[in-house]
Amino acid sequence: MPVNDRLVVVGSVALDSLETPFGRREEVLGGSASYISVAASFFVSPRVVAVVGEDFPAAHLEFLASRGADLTGVVRQPGRTFRWKGRYEFDLNVAHTLDTQLNVFALFRPELPEAYRDSEYVFLGNIDPDLQRSVLDQVRSPRFVGCDTMNYWITSRRDSLLRTLKRVDMLFVNDAEVRQLAGEHNVVKAAAAVLTMGPRALVVKRGEYGALFFSGGEVFAASAVPLAAVFDPTGAGDTFAGGFMGYLARSGRLDHAAMRRAIVVGTVLASFTVEQFSLDRLRTLRPDEIRARYAEVRRLAHFEDLEPEVLSGPTGR
Amino acid sequence: MPVNDRLVVVGSVALDSLETPFGRREEVLGGSASYISVAASFFVSPRVVAVVGEDFPAAHLEFLASRGADLTGVVRQPGRTFRWKGRYEFDLNVAHTLDTQLNVFALFRPELPEAYRDSEYVFLGNIDPDLQRSVLDQVRSPRFVGCDTMNYWITSRRDSLLRTLKRVDMLFVNDAEVRQLAGEHNVVKAAAAVLTMGPRALVVKRGEYGALFFSGGEVFAASAVPLAAVFDPTGAGDTFAGGFMGYLARSGRLDHAAMRRAIVVGTVLASFTVEQFSLDRLRTLRPDEIRARYAEVRRLAHFEDLEPEVLSGPTGR
Repeated sequence: MPVNDRLVVVGSVALDSLETPFGRREEVLGGSASYISVAASFFVSPRVVAVVGEDFPAAHLEFLASRGADLTGVVRQPGRTFRWKGRYEFDLNVAHTLDTQLNVFALFRPELPEAYRDSEYVFLGNIDPDLQRSVLDQVRSPRFVGCDTMNYWITSRRDSLLRTLKRVDMLFVNDAEVRQLAGEHNVVKAAAAVLTMGPRALVVKRGEYGALFFSGGEVFAASAVPLAAVFDPTGAGDTFAGGFMGYLARSGRLDHAAMRRAIVVGTVLASFTVEQFSLDRLRTLRPDEIRARYAEVRRLAHFEDLEPEVLSGPTGR
Repeated sequence: MPVNDRLVVVGSVALDSLETPFGRREEVLGGSASYISVAASFFVSPRVVAVVGEDFPAAHLEFLASRGADLTGVVRQPGRTFRWKGRYEFDLNVAHTLDTQLNVFALFRPELPEAYRDSEYVFLGNIDPDLQRSVLDQVRSPRFVGCDTMNYWITSRRDSLLRTLKRVDMLFVNDAEVRQLAGEHNVVKAAAAVLTMGPRALVVKRGEYGALFFSGGEVFAASAVPLAAVFDPTGAGDTFAGGFMGYLARSGRLDHAAMRRAIVVGTVLASFTVEQFSLDRLRTLRPDEIRARYAEVRRLAHFEDLEPEVLSGPTGR
């Protein structure tokens, strides 16, 4: 079977230090590009564009390569790797950033190797919207562009972000971000407003509550997998995006039914990521486990049609 | 068609004063028994047990009767009707109580008319767990008992509540309540703990995020209907319970498939309630609107099986 290398992903590669109520880890593999590319690697061989410092452990790059990721676009720069330090309380939906050291990531200017420029699927991780557009300028004819962003860009680089959004097929944000971007508290109204800004599809990630997908007049509500043990929510959103994009690139389809399956795949992949620290769960994850949990989500969400007679007026009303 | 009067509901009837970002209303019809019985009335003719004061407007009782509710068990006592005053900010998930005047509700001792005692379906609204058991003592052979409660009873009347739970088939609580009752932050673990306390089924209501149903090893995740206009969330949980119980009593079935449909019916009814103040939306609601929104929720949650080949190892791994 030929390698499917139609997907390019751009984002950060980082060393994370994490504290949760269940334990802590120092300087483990993190960053959006890491989660996205490993999640996508269950479906395709993603092309990665990122930057690391001189201190970045070779073992992490070897792990990404072992997943079939193309690392031609990962450059090593003089200086230290991007570091992020965060803490979660029992409410794992909220990350408290303790420290951010951008290091070499501050000077990241994504440059696509010539061999990447025929990519059909593009995922723009959460970076400066100017840089996101510079990536699109380097892809000859993208078929589907997914894009993440965050509160910082929405407030401080709004005009640039709006320019990026005009070139994006699907935006990936959380509840707070879609409200902030639209200036509207109601998520349904906010989603409708964002769909006038350029993207033809939007997914609103809601952590343990699942995700809402909006496109045209259509809405899809995907439940998250209810988990008895959530260990470390870091990277859940990026894993979701990676699973979504990987599945979509592999399937080759862009209809709504395929988008819905892609969203469930993203949800399923994310449900594994949070079971262990860093990308540890993804290291051992097998395709049959993904398939089984997808089937579990089908059962989780299943219900039948209403019998017509139950609403036929019990008291002759 | 004979009147289906197998369901008895016990709870409060109140006059609510409400403030939301979208408007305010003074002394409108409220109380758990009002919402529960009107929601149930789309499926059965509920028997209502409640207390009102001398000042309670006859028009409200006429409305409940016009919905087919049996009001034999609604007693009028000397004194004023229960009053609740609440405010919602833009986060409509959180009610801020401004004032509570129990009035005649403080002396409520639910007494079932003889004709109610053959009821097969019982819903115990959010009242003192001692009173909830006194209701059960008056029902000869209940087939299915649903029960609501709240943080106040969980903390101050825990032992009594635990005695009630041993006689309940299904508990209706929200996220915070299930965590508090179980002393466990993780909702899946908390649900498992509550299922050892007596109920064989549990629904965790999550407001705009939908509901989780737990029974045996089974979990069902129902999405709430994403609404562009939520006006007044008062009574959403009670409407959910009323729709659930009404559908269940009407269907006559207690299997898991029927429970799942009942949960979606509850979700659908609640989605109408919040569209207007008080019970106003339920006053004009038609069966075909319920049917249409149920079908909408089916479309909302629908996705297909994963194609087996997408996980068959894209790069020969």
